[in-house]
Amino acid sequence: MATTNYRADFPILNTMINGEPLTYLDSAATSQKPQAVIDALVTYYQHDNANVHRGVYTLAAQATDQYEAVRDQVAAFINAPQRETVFFTRSTTESLNWVAQTYGEQFIGPQDEIVLTVMEHHSNLVPWQQLAIRKHAKLRYIGLTSDGQLDMDAAKRLITAKTKLVAVAETSNVLGVTNPINDLAALAHQNGAIIVVDGAQAVAHQPVDVQAMDADFYAFSGHKMLAPTGIGVLYGKLDLLKQLTPAEFGGEMIDNVTQQTTTFAAIPQRFEAGTPNISGVIGLGAAITYLQQVGWPTIEAQENQLTERLLTGLLKMDGVTVYGPHDLALHGPVVAFNLNGVHPHDVATGLDMAGVEVRAGHHCAQPLMQYLQTSATVRASVMFYNTPAEIDRLLTALAEVKEFFQP
Amino acid sequence: MATTNYRADFPILNTMINGEPLTYLDSAATSQKPQAVIDALVTYYQHDNANVHRGVYTLAAQATDQYEAVRDQVAAFINAPQRETVFFTRSTTESLNWVAQTYGEQFIGPQDEIVLTVMEHHSNLVPWQQLAIRKHAKLRYIGLTSDGQLDMDAAKRLITAKTKLVAVAETSNVLGVTNPINDLAALAHQNGAIIVVDGAQAVAHQPVDVQAMDADFYAFSGHKMLAPTGIGVLYGKLDLLKQLTPAEFGGEMIDNVTQQTTTFAAIPQRFEAGTPNISGVIGLGAAITYLQQVGWPTIEAQENQLTERLLTGLLKMDGVTVYGPHDLALHGPVVAFNLNGVHPHDVATGLDMAGVEVRAGHHCAQPLMQYLQTSATVRASVMFYNTPAEIDRLLTALAEVKEFFQP
Repeated sequence: MATTNYRADFPILNTMINGEPLTYLDSAATSQKPQAVIDALVTYYQHDNANVHRGVYTLAAQATDQYEAVRDQVAAFINAPQRETVFFTRSTTESLNWVAQTYGEQFIGPQDEIVLTVMEHHSNLVPWQQLAIRKHAKLRYIGLTSDGQLDMDAAKRLITAKTKLVAVAETSNVLGVTNPINDLAALAHQNGAIIVVDGAQAVAHQPVDVQAMDADFYAFSGHKMLAPTGIGVLYGKLDLLKQLTPAEFGGEMIDNVTQQTTTFAAIPQRFEAGTPNISGVIGLGAAITYLQQVGWPTIEAQENQLTERLLTGLLKMDGVTVYGPHDLALHGPVVAFNLNGVHPHDVATGLDMAGVEVRAGHHCAQPLMQYLQTSATVRASVMFYNTPAEIDRLLTALAEVKEFFQP
Repeated sequence: MATTNYRADFPILNTMINGEPLTYLDSAATSQKPQAVIDALVTYYQHDNANVHRGVYTLAAQATDQYEAVRDQVAAFINAPQRETVFFTRSTTESLNWVAQTYGEQFIGPQDEIVLTVMEHHSNLVPWQQLAIRKHAKLRYIGLTSDGQLDMDAAKRLITAKTKLVAVAETSNVLGVTNPINDLAALAHQNGAIIVVDGAQAVAHQPVDVQAMDADFYAFSGHKMLAPTGIGVLYGKLDLLKQLTPAEFGGEMIDNVTQQTTTFAAIPQRFEAGTPNISGVIGLGAAITYLQQVGWPTIEAQENQLTERLLTGLLKMDGVTVYGPHDLALHGPVVAFNLNGVHPHDVATGLDMAGVEVRAGHHCAQPLMQYLQTSATVRASVMFYNTPAEIDRLLTALAEVKEFFQP
């Protein structure tokens, strides 16, 4: 396994934290960036920076070409059927809110049902909850099986003719499970509902095919897939996008404006008001190119090996509760756990002393915490740039924290 | 004047365009970036990248400290009375839409009047127009005096007890005029209305004091003030912000979430849903530091000198129409003009052959174009990194374009 080659591409991984080598195990919060992505930003600002879509001059045309080429790249990356089904937002959060503000406002009414899962991140939960409150619609939540998977029997009971929209994470940011989106999409569509998929935790870890999964909307962020912060994507089926009124108004999304009326530009410009995050888009393109150079077989093999080492190591320790499936075959590169009787913040702080950076808290999934009957967990998450030695550092440091708190 | 020192800080200004040195005169569309801002992005991603507000570990705490320090910096830069009155958005466009989606949705009703000016950019016009359509409110437009300034007599007639909101650009992106915001704010407040100020074209060119101008909301973008793309700011008076329901829901803007209810975090986190554009914020901080190092006296002196040379040169040429004031004292660093009988796109394309990059089009201000009875203009805009020689290159190239089309 050529791990070290890829690792060398990420300059931050040489950082020292509290006198120890940085052991970054919080990629589910945000990924680190390869030099190729950093270089893309530098090159853009040193050589190509101009506003897009606005100028006829050479520099502006070049910037526009680069920006629009990334739209093609993103469309190919998720197998979108047309380039105009992809548009750029600030983040997954903005993408999901956008669907609630447009599709939700236009098509969800009183007594309509919105089906979520108990494992949703707040960004794919609170927008629907607040929409339901505004529209007097109802929320239904799909629970979990005893082994921490989505309860598909419950899904079959809850997704009915009353359902107008199903919103679900492809991969949970806490449990690490990947949900059967194809089956959920089929259930939704059989009942005349649409399905909105939060791909934030999936898109950097496995191939995504929005047509194969039959998602109506698919949202993700750049910063969790090696790209800069401040750039997100929303894919939507073309026939749905065509029905939607824009949520934001301003430059470049218009066709003709008079004092009292406006007609809008064609999709996707219609949904990209104002100067976009041009360098963020350029960086996203570089991130996709880099991920494709590493390749899914390498990424998946490396992350599976790391997850196995992490999961196995945690399950072997006494006094540790691991949430989500204990079966590696069901597990993505995120593992949530607690050291029994020790506050997860204390665990994370203890690990930080050893340079091991993991997250502690509710992970923006408080309803899941309530469902799991805990207020918070520790969470370690890996990416292909991590190494088995880093997993071992986590396990060793955790054993020391455990010894300190549970002597 | 130490122009060349600052110029050397902007690597892109060494670029060749069509075999000629880049003469970038489109800073009103987007500014170029000094190496200090590019370096801030590189340093962030090579040494400090982590998600903010989420982690207890060292790297996350450092990133959060850096991010929040820029909030303080921005607050000081515009003299906001409290740090929590400043929050980060994607752009001026998002900031202005946010006010329409929150304050507008909550407080504008049927027959209420919204007063705009004919010189507004679409981003400070279409959101209000679409709000007025949704709410059955009325739009009123303040016109111009014959010398291209805002008609303050008309403002006094149009801003009445029926007015609920006045939305105005501090500086026009076409006419280059800076409007008397203090007077407009006083008129608005005397009539019980609020004033929303689009600072996009002002904030990089002159000191901004939101308390002195008494703006209720003040919006601007980073990318027009040397910062990266994808980062904007909204300032709002604290007592107004406290009354507003969030427009976007997700991580970090919540206090407590259950399946059916949510309570929200304190301001400003309440209005920053999801992972923000962290590197964009860091870059904005570096841009403010850089602007302050150059200093307003240098910036204003240099830009005044450049604008004078540009305006004088254009006014001296036969067959050129200059829009907006012809008086330098009224003029910011943006000059819109046309070569009579020649399409502005042809002019811009001709100038591009000489490496001179200017914008041609409606500048996202179609109602202003209608008011000026033209479909489009050429626009040259300067920043302190430009030189008198660049203005001369524009004027020389324009004379050649004129000779070609008007022999």
